[in-house]
Formats: sequence, structure tokens, C-alpha cells
Amino acid sequence: MELDSAVSGAALGGVAMAGSDVGLLDGLCSTRAIRRYTDEAIPDAALRDMLFAATRAPSGSNRQPFRFVVLRDGAKAAQAKTLIGESAKGIWDAKRRNDGYDRGSGANTRSPKARMARTMQRYVDTIESAPVLVLPCLVRYRDPDPMEGASVYPAVQNLMLAARALGYGGVITGFHRPVEARLKTLLGIPSEVFVACTVTLGRPEGGHGPVRRRPMGELVFGDSWNEAPDWAVDPPGTQHTSAGPPKSDRTT
Amino acid sequence: MELDSAVSGAALGGVAMAGSDVGLLDGLCSTRAIRRYTDEAIPDAALRDMLFAATRAPSGSNRQPFRFVVLRDGAKAAQAKTLIGESAKGIWDAKRRNDGYDRGSGANTRSPKARMARTMQRYVDTIESAPVLVLPCLVRYRDPDPMEGASVYPAVQNLMLAARALGYGGVITGFHRPVEARLKTLLGIPSEVFVACTVTLGRPEGGHGPVRRRPMGELVFGDSWNEAPDWAVDPPGTQHTSAGPPKSDRTT
Repeated sequence: MELDSAVSGAALGGVAMAGSDVGLLDGLCSTRAIRRYTDEAIPDAALRDMLFAATRAPSGSNRQPFRFVVLRDGAKAAQAKTLIGESAKGIWDAKRRNDGYDRGSGANTRSPKARMARTMQRYVDTIESAPVLVLPCLVRYRDPDPMEGASVYPAVQNLMLAARALGYGGVITGFHRPVEARLKTLLGIPSEVFVACTVTLGRPEGGHGPVRRRPMGELVFGDSWNEAPDWAVDPPGTQHTSAGPPKSDRTT
Repeated sequence: MELDSAVSGAALGGVAMAGSDVGLLDGLCSTRAIRRYTDEAIPDAALRDMLFAATRAPSGSNRQPFRFVVLRDGAKAAQAKTLIGESAKGIWDAKRRNDGYDRGSGANTRSPKARMARTMQRYVDTIESAPVLVLPCLVRYRDPDPMEGASVYPAVQNLMLAARALGYGGVITGFHRPVEARLKTLLGIPSEVFVACTVTLGRPEGGHGPVRRRPMGELVFGDSWNEAPDWAVDPPGTQHTSAGPPKSDRTT
């Protein structure tokens, strides 16, 4: 990775992909949302590898309808980041209120809920200065369909995993949604294109916890819904969490 | 992997995940659709690792609305496989005609198109006997939304990549769609649940080609739509293909 970082632009056509220090299966289980980044820019070589991996993902009939708009430090990129930043702050303000992040255990500054609120507040306050924003898009060839996401979100997941492989991290958000029309005008994205999400990417700052999900026995079934097969047991050391925002405090 | 395969069922709670022979970045770029399987069953330990990796994927607000119905050799699984198999044959018959797989270069049995048609024909003819079928589902908590796929297809992609890590392979299909209502009745899947796709999994039989996609410069843009940054160049040795089914022969 260090050697390749010195090569940039079109010269990368002669440069092989970086090797991985992380194994495939381990990487799948240890990639988590990263919302705090250092100021470090992402070099061309790392971006190339990440976006190459993203575009190798599967899609229906291998049509490859996914496109990735990569926003770094161009003039339009700066404007797009500002639009998304304003939108992000509005969305988080509403969510913080509605999901009760400052009530119940959220009033205790050392609670997981209060920590999450601080991380989110900083994230939306500084999202314009995240090193890279990516807008993964889907070029529709037929009317919107519930399964169309199968042709863009696997590529988004490849992007997140490739970032992890190279020592970066990111998170998938919907912060572009209130400003999608303005972004399309700004960046020349055709109106029929679906902007599937907004991804921020950067070098993780400080420490972060492990991936936390529900026990797999709540998510994996056999011949009947809600009945887990006996083999659906988490490996030793698995960290759990309940699902979603802090709903239990919503009505307090 | 070999040692773990001897452990099955609930005893897997004491067994760590398998190690990977494949690096993370390399795995992302070398996982392709696998449609030909040996008769080999997939042991509990491998299935546990694959489904564990799938359920560690990200989702909106970490709500984890994904569920995986794993069909092996139970009585209902056999019925579900039969339903999906009949549906698959009908869908492929229509596609073979409409996309002109037997016209143009498809008339040459050695053409890529004819090879693809043979692989697909065998795939749908034998899909009932694929070692495992998985129905990844999305439990909706609000009305259908174009971004909801961001909470299930990353998990599906993790499943495909985990299969690759363990020496298995599979493909994402929509073959359940015409029989979705009957499958829900059979398997007790609540009516409001979205069955996001059907995945087949097994040990790859014989050789298969590399991942082929469009050059990344056609898929990755900078500040403006359809304008690739200079660093968006494929690494040496990349194999390409045009997008989608053989459209060029459709009107011949």
C-alpha cells in the first residue's frame, strides 16, 4: 500500500491492486460504520482500489447499472458537500428529538446512547470536511422495482469492505435525499437516475467498538419463519446489540 | 475449515469462525456468479460461518431488518425448491427467447453466448438439487421505499463473499418472484415481508472464468456525470465484458 500511494492518476493503469492484511471472512465480520475521520486525504491509489472493487460487484444480468460519483476537492464537490452537510444536520436534529437521544439513559453522558448522540452530532457537523463523499447511483432501465437495489447495494457493500481492507472506513447514509434534485442539477446527474445513498470515507480517528448485531439465531431461519436451525449459533466472543435507534426511551 | 466441518449443530457455539485463505480486497474482486455445483452438501459449520457473516452487514440505523430462510433438505424445503425450480424454468425459457440466446452468435455453440445459454439451461434444470437455497428477506417497518434495499442487499453480498471465502459459490436471482405468495404460505413468512431474492449455494463444479465487468472508467465519475477521474483505470490483467444480456443480437 505504501509504495502504491506514491503513484497517482492515469499511471495507476500499470499498478496492481494492493494486498490485504485482512482475510475475507474476517473482514466481512469486522467492518463497521466509521463516522470519525482524521484530516488525511485518501490517495488516488487507494481510491482506485476501492472503486475498482465496488464496480466488480454482481448485478442483475450483469447489466452493471451502478455508477459512482466521487466527490473530493473540486469546485462542484465542495458545493455538493455543503448541500449534503446542511441536509444531514436537519435530518439528525429531527432524529435526535424523535428518537429521544437526550431522554432516558441519554441524559447520562456516559451511556451508549449519549455516546452515539455525540458521535452523530460531530459527524453531521463536520461531514463537509470528510475526505471523500461518494454518491452510488443506479441507472434505471425499467420502472422502479423493489428488487432493483440488488443491482447497486452489493456494489456499495464492496466499497465499504474495500475501504476496510485498505485501512479506511465509512458509513452508508441517506443524507442526500432532501437535496437530491439540487445535487443532480449541480453534478449533471440525469433526472431518471436513482441516487442510492451517500457514503462518507476517510481514515478512522481514534478507537471504535466491535461490530454489534443481534444474535444470528434471531435472524436466520430454517424451514419455518422464526425458527432458527440448531447450527445458527454465534461464534465465541460475538458482541450483540438490540436493533435500531433507542426505541425503548421514545415514550419516556 | 476441515476440523470445524466435523462439528455440527448447537456445538458450533464453541467453535470459532474459519480462517480465510483469500484476502479481503482480492475476494471482493474475484467473487463471481457460480451456477454449477457438485453434489456435495454444505456442512453446518460452513453454513454457520456464511450466515453469521451475512448477518454482520450494515443496515439503516442498525435496525437489522434482514432475515435469512435457509432451505436444505427438510420437507418444506423440498416443496419450496420445487416451486422455485418451476418458476426458474419459466423465467429462463422466456429470457432465452426474448434476449435472443439462440440467434446471432448464439447459433455458434462455441460462442460465449451459447456457453452462457447452456450454463443457464443446466442451472434452471437442476436448481431443485442445489445443495442450499437461501431466501434473504426484509421485514419492513414502513412503506416500501427505494432505499430499503440498503438494509438487505449488503447482507446478501456478505453471504456471497463468505461463500467464496469458504470455497463455495452462488448466485443472486429473482426466481422466487412469480411464486412468492405460495412460498410465504408454505414457509410461514408474514405477508408484509419482502423476499429480496433467491440465492443458490454449493461447491463450484469444474472451472469458471474470471469476474468480467465494464472498465471502471465507464462506471466511476468525478465532479461531473460521465467524466471519469484520471485515476479511474483498471489494474493490469482486468477482464472486461459489455453490460447485460446479448442485446446486440436482439433484433437480428
